[in-house]
Order: sequence, then C-alpha cells, then structure tokens
Amino acid sequence: MVSGIIVAAGKGSRMGPNVDKLFLEVNGCPVVAHTWRLFDRLPSIGELVIVVRDGLESSFEELGKKYKFTKSFRFVAGGHERQDSVWNGLQALSPAVEIVVIQDGARPCTDPDLITATISAAREMGAAVAAQPVTDTIKESNDGQLVARTLDRSRLWAVQTPQTFRLDIIQRALTEARNQGLIVTDDTAACELIGQPVKLVVGTRPNPKVTRPEDVALVQLLLREAK
Amino acid sequence: MVSGIIVAAGKGSRMGPNVDKLFLEVNGCPVVAHTWRLFDRLPSIGELVIVVRDGLESSFEELGKKYKFTKSFRFVAGGHERQDSVWNGLQALSPAVEIVVIQDGARPCTDPDLITATISAAREMGAAVAAQPVTDTIKESNDGQLVARTLDRSRLWAVQTPQTFRLDIIQRALTEARNQGLIVTDDTAACELIGQPVKLVVGTRPNPKVTRPEDVALVQLLLREAK
Repeated sequence: MVSGIIVAAGKGSRMGPNVDKLFLEVNGCPVVAHTWRLFDRLPSIGELVIVVRDGLESSFEELGKKYKFTKSFRFVAGGHERQDSVWNGLQALSPAVEIVVIQDGARPCTDPDLITATISAAREMGAAVAAQPVTDTIKESNDGQLVARTLDRSRLWAVQTPQTFRLDIIQRALTEARNQGLIVTDDTAACELIGQPVKLVVGTRPNPKVTRPEDVALVQLLLREAK
Repeated sequence: MVSGIIVAAGKGSRMGPNVDKLFLEVNGCPVVAHTWRLFDRLPSIGELVIVVRDGLESSFEELGKKYKFTKSFRFVAGGHERQDSVWNGLQALSPAVEIVVIQDGARPCTDPDLITATISAAREMGAAVAAQPVTDTIKESNDGQLVARTLDRSRLWAVQTPQTFRLDIIQRALTEARNQGLIVTDDTAACELIGQPVKLVVGTRPNPKVTRPEDVALVQLLLREAK
C-alpha cells in the first residue's frame, strides 16, 4: 500500500503574526484542505496520516467533514522539528505500507502526475523527490552581506514535496539522523546520511509552498487553473 | 550621473516558439515597456541605454513614442552572450556617467526603492546586486538524475537585477572576463574575477523575471498591485 503523510504542524511565522498559513482561505477553501483534497482524490494513495499541531485535531476533524474527504485518515501530533513530525507520522502508518509519500500541508498546487511519478521512482530506487532546475543565479555568502562566490547553476536543483520513499528506507534514514542528533531540512537529506541514492523527479508545473504573503497570489491562480 | 542599461536582447526560448517574452502583453502593455517605464519614472536615473536585438530598433522606437517616455534614451545592438550585450551598452554611455544600473528587460516588477538602494550601495562599495534569501532546499547533482548533496541554505542567495556598479569597476570586470574568455551568468560574477566585493541588497518584494509561461500570472498580479 502507498500512504500519504501530510505535514501540517508548522507555525509559518513568515506569514505575519496571527496568520496560520494552513488555514488561510484561498479560492474559498483553506490551503491545507486543498492539499488534503489532492491526496484524497489520488487513486494510488491508500490512506492518509495528517500531522497536526497539538490542540488543532478538532479543527482538522471539521475540515475532513466539511469537505467530505472519503479516504481513510488519522491525525498524529507534530514534533519539535519537521523531521520529528515526519517521524511521528511514520509511527502511525498501517502495517501494510510499502511506500510513503510525504507532502507539505502548505503546498496545495502539486501536479497529481508528479506525485505518481515520485511513487514510481521510489519503488524503483528507494527514494525520490520532486525537483525543479534553479533558474536564478545563486551566490554563496559567508555573512549575508557580501558575495563569496557564484555557484554553478547547471548543477543545482530546488527540491519540494512530495518526497517519496520505501518505508524501510525513510525509517532507517531518519533513525540515523536522530542517532547523530542532526536536524535535516528535508527528508531526502536524511537519506544522504545512510548513502541511499535519491532520484530527482522533475516537475513541469509550478509547485509553490505558501510561506510568505506574496506566495498567495500565485497559489490562487494555479488552483483556479487546476479546477 | 547614474545611467540605466536595460538588457532587452534575449531570445527567451523557454516561453515557447514564436513568443518574444519582451513583447508579451501584460496588463495591456508589453513586458519590456513596463520595465522601461520603471526607469523612466525614477528621478535618480539620468539616461537610459536599451540593448536590443538587431533589427528590432524600430519596434522599440515605437514603444518609446507610444508610452511617451520622457527620459533620454538610445539603442545599441545586443551581442552573442549577455555579457557582450552589457559590454555594448557600456560603450554607449555618456562620458559623465559614474554609476550604471543594469536591469533585465524581462524583469518588470522591480521595486523602485530596491533600485535606489543598489545605487547607494554601489556608490559606497563599488558593486551591488538585488538579492533574496533562497527559500527552497537546494541540492547539487552531478548528472541531473541523482542528488549528490544538500547545500547549506542559510548561505545561499538568489540574485536578480538591478546589478549596479561604479562604471570603472564594471568596465574592468567585464574586460577581465573577456580577456580570460569566460562566459559569466551575471555581471557581478565578473567582479569576482577582479576581487571586487559585491554587496547583497535584499529586496522585500517579489522581483520575478518573465522566463517561462507560468511566470506571467505572478507578474500580472504584481503589476496590478504596483499601479
């Protein structure tokens, strides 16, 4: 079985005070409900685990009812870091799970074909991540003030979610990160710790995460087009 | 005097065949005319040099008339690479120029305050570039297939335009790139060749370049807000 873990336990401080980006209404529906719907509609996903902030279970319960999601789901509480939230999600999966698709709750425009492509790649390679070539020139700076050097853009990829894994692999990778006391910014970085190759799966459509206020306009347009 | 060079000689193949991104109409006006207007309205800019593709001078001439731009401008023909186009632009500046602001023609939403801030930084430091912290996780790949490693995002900056320089510095930097036969992806990379420090000037608003079809929606919204 393929399970989805939707990571929806973030604070999202870059949206401004008192704004929970996950519950921000875009085209008449909270951001996280758009993400949830995406996975609810995808035939290859057998069940969903939604990682939420402690105390918000009832708000999510209401969302599930309001939008009449039909796929089996359960909630688990988020942890201190993103990787702790994912870890908690892994503990809540059904025993029959072979492949796990990890998705940011605040990333509502992901192309369903991209999700499916990461599932295929993870079956074959063990680990896969949605990626896009970097279009900006990227500079490295030691102090945030002066440019230290220009990186070779042709070698750089911006990675997003879904990040999709064979269950045994992501379990082993995150266990290693925990044992080493490392904080990883994404789940595939944990795979690097155990020497697990990660396949880049290139998306053809924008796949933004709602992080800053200016992200909302693009998300709005993309969701309108996807209807 | 401060001069602006608008680099509008690109082919823009990523927009699809037969689409010239510079002449794509957004909110009733070609992209490059939005960019031109931005500089036409900025009091600190004394003159404009617009680098255009050979044969398109008359189309640009018409734009200038249609939108009643008032600031002194002239056209020069673009070169083979971006740096050749900038080089040609530099040769066309008035003798009194001390500071030169280089702007992508296809980047129409730049905050005027950001342009002004790069001018101040270039006066002080010699070279400055509009930059934003990278929000995506960036991976390096040797083959575009597998992840090689995760970069430390806190050290990475996406750079845009304007890229602003003391004239003697950008002349020296580009001369060095030409002498070494190097192709640089942006003008500040040439400064690195001569050991010239480049100041990162952090923008607070999105500053997209029209490169791919999906960029148009965001640009549309930003231009509407900026009115």
